[in-house]
Amino acid sequence: MTVPAYRRLSVEQRRSQLIASALGLFARRPPEDVTLDDVAAAAGVSRPLVYRYFPGGKQQLYEAALRSAADVLERCFDEPPVGPPSRRLVNVLDRYLDFVDEHAAGFTALLAGGSVAGTSRTTAIVDEVRRAAADALVTHLQVPPSAARIRMMLRTWIAGVEAASLIWLDEGRQPPREELRDWLVDQFVAQLVATGVQDAPGGDVLLRALAQEDREGPVGALTRRVVPVVTDAAHLL
Amino acid sequence: MTVPAYRRLSVEQRRSQLIASALGLFARRPPEDVTLDDVAAAAGVSRPLVYRYFPGGKQQLYEAALRSAADVLERCFDEPPVGPPSRRLVNVLDRYLDFVDEHAAGFTALLAGGSVAGTSRTTAIVDEVRRAAADALVTHLQVPPSAARIRMMLRTWIAGVEAASLIWLDEGRQPPREELRDWLVDQFVAQLVATGVQDAPGGDVLLRALAQEDREGPVGALTRRVVPVVTDAAHLL
Repeated sequence: MTVPAYRRLSVEQRRSQLIASALGLFARRPPEDVTLDDVAAAAGVSRPLVYRYFPGGKQQLYEAALRSAADVLERCFDEPPVGPPSRRLVNVLDRYLDFVDEHAAGFTALLAGGSVAGTSRTTAIVDEVRRAAADALVTHLQVPPSAARIRMMLRTWIAGVEAASLIWLDEGRQPPREELRDWLVDQFVAQLVATGVQDAPGGDVLLRALAQEDREGPVGALTRRVVPVVTDAAHLL
Repeated sequence: MTVPAYRRLSVEQRRSQLIASALGLFARRPPEDVTLDDVAAAAGVSRPLVYRYFPGGKQQLYEAALRSAADVLERCFDEPPVGPPSRRLVNVLDRYLDFVDEHAAGFTALLAGGSVAGTSRTTAIVDEVRRAAADALVTHLQVPPSAARIRMMLRTWIAGVEAASLIWLDEGRQPPREELRDWLVDQFVAQLVATGVQDAPGGDVLLRALAQEDREGPVGALTRRVVPVVTDAAHLL
């Protein structure tokens, strides 16, 4: 007879295992449709054992799972500050969209609103992730505090990425993920350009970023596509 | 002795008056901090009278107030389909930002999440407003169903407008409202250009929109600001 595996887990290992099981369930079903019995069954343990670790029940387990997912998500933003900024953004978005793809149901429930998932505590965790994303962009682009419009643009773009991710999941993951990622990068560049041309601090950020780009990258491709449009729009010059 | 004014109101008038009083309170305080007693006091009626009209209590009154606010908001999108699209957008955004300014606390509570305001019913109303906004943009720009990326861009921009509105309120209504509005128009144009250059259906929408713009309007001003940046970015061509 073998000793059941769970007897050999430390408190921390057991906690992690329960959170991982919960995350797996929340990824496929909205939190409303996941019970503690489901989590116990998925982890191969008893319901009382789940309660021993999470005496607050499903809400506590959900928040612990969200905390764990937020940590994973924040690690997506770790990117070395070298190379064209657009390439770094491609790398970050690839990791982020992996996460969205993998946690589809939980991601949607949390951000689409109207779910039991939305409490002031879960909102605080989501806001922390948004802040971490904005901080990462500020660092990569070396945005000074004086470039207030650029900062607003970064936060607005992040909201757009969330919305686009929800639309993408809702529409059966169309367009293909690489196209969505490239489009999000193009949106970023376009929004940065339109914002950067408005004042001197923004202009500095924009020109420094463009100077680091190359013609083979996404910014080069976008620039070459936009130039003919400006020719078509000669009546605006 | 005068007969109290409330005796003379019809059922519909009384209901509207209570909703208006509630909206006034929700505009200044989050829904958590508004009681039925507050609404009764603001309307100059008794608490039982509020309950007679809204037996479901505060939640029912809140949803009725939200329904009423959503109707006001959707009317903001009514704009004659004439003139440069960017000017129409300026008009719509002016009305929308009036609404945001006026309903600040309620707007924030509803959209920032983590509030008692967020239920599946309130989310459905908010989603309906978002859909109405997207439909209005689709109509003005005559976006065909084949232009899927443009449709995604419109919905993403709408999410960005919501986020920017929340940031604007949170930062003490900075920048001034006209600057925020002009920036949102510029973001729209930039996102439309970056999306329209990607495929033929999007290109048709983009060129048709640009053809209706003039050099005095916001698109002309943005174009003239961006052209020198392209010169600075000659290494990308």
